[in-house]
Amino acid sequence: MAKSRFEYVKMFEQLDRCLPNSWIVVRIDGKGFHRFSEQHKFKKPNDEQALSLMNDCAKSVLTNFSDIVIGYGQSDEYSFVFKRNTETYNRRASKLLSTVVSLFTSNYVFKWTKFFPTTELLYAPSFDSRAVLYPTTQNLRDYLSWRQADCHINNLYNTCFWKLVLESSLNHQQAEARLKGTDSAEKNELLFSEFNINYNNEPEFFRKGTVVEERSVLLDGGDGEKVVKQARNVIAAEHVDIIRANFWKSHPSLLGEQQE
Amino acid sequence: MAKSRFEYVKMFEQLDRCLPNSWIVVRIDGKGFHRFSEQHKFKKPNDEQALSLMNDCAKSVLTNFSDIVIGYGQSDEYSFVFKRNTETYNRRASKLLSTVVSLFTSNYVFKWTKFFPTTELLYAPSFDSRAVLYPTTQNLRDYLSWRQADCHINNLYNTCFWKLVLESSLNHQQAEARLKGTDSAEKNELLFSEFNINYNNEPEFFRKGTVVEERSVLLDGGDGEKVVKQARNVIAAEHVDIIRANFWKSHPSLLGEQQE
Amino acid sequence: MAKSRFEYVKMFEQLDRCLPNSWIVVRIDGKGFHRFSEQHKFKKPNDEQALSLMNDCAKSVLTNFSDIVIGYGQSDEYSFVFKRNTETYNRRASKLLSTVVSLFTSNYVFKWTKFFPTTELLYAPSFDSRAVLYPTTQNLRDYLSWRQADCHINNLYNTCFWKLVLESSLNHQQAEARLKGTDSAEKNELLFSEFNINYNNEPEFFRKGTVVEERSVLLDGGDGEKVVKQARNVIAAEHVDIIRANFWKSHPSLLGEQQE
Amino acid sequence: MAKSRFEYVKMFEQLDRCLPNSWIVVRIDGKGFHRFSEQHKFKKPNDEQALSLMNDCAKSVLTNFSDIVIGYGQSDEYSFVFKRNTETYNRRASKLLSTVVSLFTSNYVFKWTKFFPTTELLYAPSFDSRAVLYPTTQNLRDYLSWRQADCHINNLYNTCFWKLVLESSLNHQQAEARLKGTDSAEKNELLFSEFNINYNNEPEFFRKGTVVEERSVLLDGGDGEKVVKQARNVIAAEHVDIIRANFWKSHPSLLGEQQE
Repeated sequence: MAKSRFEYVKMFEQLDRCLPNSWIVVRIDGKGFHRFSEQHKFKKPNDEQALSLMNDCAKSVLTNFSDIVIGYGQSDEYSFVFKRNTETYNRRASKLLSTVVSLFTSNYVFKWTKFFPTTELLYAPSFDSRAVLYPTTQNLRDYLSWRQADCHINNLYNTCFWKLVLESSLNHQQAEARLKGTDSAEKNELLFSEFNINYNNEPEFFRKGTVVEERSVLLDGGDGEKVVKQARNVIAAEHVDIIRANFWKSHPSLLGEQQE
Repeated sequence: MAKSRFEYVKMFEQLDRCLPNSWIVVRIDGKGFHRFSEQHKFKKPNDEQALSLMNDCAKSVLTNFSDIVIGYGQSDEYSFVFKRNTETYNRRASKLLSTVVSLFTSNYVFKWTKFFPTTELLYAPSFDSRAVLYPTTQNLRDYLSWRQADCHINNLYNTCFWKLVLESSLNHQQAEARLKGTDSAEKNELLFSEFNINYNNEPEFFRKGTVVEERSVLLDGGDGEKVVKQARNVIAAEHVDIIRANFWKSHPSLLGEQQE
Repeated sequence: MAKSRFEYVKMFEQLDRCLPNSWIVVRIDGKGFHRFSEQHKFKKPNDEQALSLMNDCAKSVLTNFSDIVIGYGQSDEYSFVFKRNTETYNRRASKLLSTVVSLFTSNYVFKWTKFFPTTELLYAPSFDSRAVLYPTTQNLRDYLSWRQADCHINNLYNTCFWKLVLESSLNHQQAEARLKGTDSAEKNELLFSEFNINYNNEPEFFRKGTVVEERSVLLDGGDGEKVVKQARNVIAAEHVDIIRANFWKSHPSLLGEQQE
Repeated sequence: MAKSRFEYVKMFEQLDRCLPNSWIVVRIDGKGFHRFSEQHKFKKPNDEQALSLMNDCAKSVLTNFSDIVIGYGQSDEYSFVFKRNTETYNRRASKLLSTVVSLFTSNYVFKWTKFFPTTELLYAPSFDSRAVLYPTTQNLRDYLSWRQADCHINNLYNTCFWKLVLESSLNHQQAEARLKGTDSAEKNELLFSEFNINYNNEPEFFRKGTVVEERSVLLDGGDGEKVVKQARNVIAAEHVDIIRANFWKSHPSLLGEQQE
């Protein structure tokens, strides 16, 4: 193709290649989802359909990026971890964070009807995204722990808040005042004594958030005559603790050999 | 809210604030749109509905970002120019480029049916995005000229190519061979002599791409009793030359006082 | 030369190429020069020899970097402005700022005896440096004005302070207390009424700092038989106002055509 | 102090804080030292005085930066490793790399006479510097191995080259031609058969370069009446292998607990 005299402006693009051998985390966050969830009448404190839609979008992201080793989501956010030596898009931060958020958003709208067959999508929702580097596997695990601890803290609070609002008829302000300054133990006690709820029996889906990762499973296959077990990669979703070491011990390949 | 011992990982986020007093251009690009356009049977060389969908998404982006002074789109790409002293998102590059691409993508899927009422969207399309800084207004204008020159070059080529394929029954390889090494004059001549087409009479929509910007117009308003002209801001779309000075002279407020 | 299996670590170096078409300012600053000036008994408030040494080092920097268009120095700092389209060291910030500060420092020690023939250099002094980008010529001029205004503010204060200490026998604390909260007019008045000094008659060297730039001059040359005027480039040092437009109007080539 | 209307230009300085928990290596390199070494008649292939001067400068750098855990030097370059969690200068890359190179350069000129008492320093030498991040301890060790392997490769070559030039009367071009394409074994053989030199018996100073690090030693101290052993930190210089694990095993505190 012919070139124009304006081509020089390409040189103004700056390289944003991520430091090699570092974990790249792309986190997306819903923009204005407080309003979005109200206008689409999401159930409080947790809307299982809305969370399932998020998880389904995350699975699509993993399907498209073979170098994402794990995803973790809660509320209106999702984190995706690229393997530390990925060369996807030559490790360019903008390219990675923009394609992930675009693909996630696209799927969110595309799959809306599947999860909300009777709720019309009123307007186009959006997410922001960022890329953060973690030099060591411990830093990465602490990042994921931070997000899961955040999930726990918020969900315990929201569970109390909405019980007070929906079952004790407090208004929002009163519920806030009631919870102000309480620690976890006091919130657990409030749920138990006032609403007969043992928080630990609440669904893990809501208490733990969701982990998605690719996993090799044996599926029935074959040539039509006889059934043969075949290894197939599927994207699995679980609601498990990823703060403690157990999860990582039982998934040793996820973070790879710790050549640090 | 309580804080966890994992909070320290927030410090790994790096500030990507854009240089002050520089034009910030966010450009989005369709990913795999060659395949996407085939699978959704876009008309060749230009599908007016597909381009109109792009423009409608761009308008939504401008509606959401009051600091975008102009957008320019062609094919499956769109550029958005933030005013040089914008403080939107504190000038953070990741935040700007991710929200723009997410909002654009979301609208693309959300509005699909409006532009393609009889074509099912088969899968979720995505875009990438980048942010580029231009220190001077001349550099910015050259950037926009670069994109519009690109539109011209590609459209002239594609117009020839698809005429040869659709009307002269050449296959893709033959059409490519026929055009190889031809300059603009020869392509114009080919269109004229073989297909009786004066390229300059082709629709400006296809030859120039689309400029979107906010504009103040006088609209009828009032209190219901008497009609009063009221100034209202609307997002206008035009298919005009932005390489020559004329456009900028007639829109002096777009790039502002050139305090350089 | 043979390569080792460790070569891969080179890839961890990150490109820090400065945005094109922007003014690059490298500023160096003395580290711990309060103590350094005391230990080497610099005259207060200004030591002409120490400042002349700084200026001589700056000239050496300009001699080595043909793309530095102007330097401005005061106290223990110096700013060097690379022309906006310089390709010196491929515009790499680290390379530019490190070679400038190293060359400046090296000359400072190397030339010490020339300016302080009877004062032993007690230890090796050092400077830090940084590179800052300015997208427009106005921003660059404002940068230089900022440094010269800083020179003025500090020198007026220091002139008062040391008069009070050296001639009015106030101790440092008392002199500070005396000056606290005074504005420029009051400091001028203090100098005039108590010390019979008209601040505007103080040497421009101290009030304005020093501008260094390359300049073409006509020098006597020739083949030994007849004298011929020849154009030669020399590094000139001046103590002039660079805040007002006059200086720039009389040196139109310094900042070049403002293609902005 | 009063502020001027120009203060806004400070905002154009961009934060260059290094990624947390990563090893920061600042490497300085002599500029034009080929010419510098010729003009100052450095002995070939190695000038012990010149290398000792480099090492003495490195010790001064370590004395000034308590967070540098190790330095490694060879030829006209030196690498300094800051501990991975250093907060020196808030981890700002420019500040770190500029003060290190300035301090090193300053000492080089300041201490010249101590190492070259009879050789006049003809002009002011300079160095450049850069900061490179290494996310893991293995990457850091590979970096240091890279520099030491480079030392070995260059020194073996230079030993051969200068033997050929100084003792076999080849000119530079002939010596280059003679060595072209030879591997290490062939160079060793050449030294042995033609010059009766066992390369492994050459001084470790030249073959290994120099490692500098702070070390706690017991020194005689006391109150003047009785001698007491006191722990004192000194900067030690050694010419040892740092590629193999031995060195690191015997200095376990240098790279700290590998919390990766």
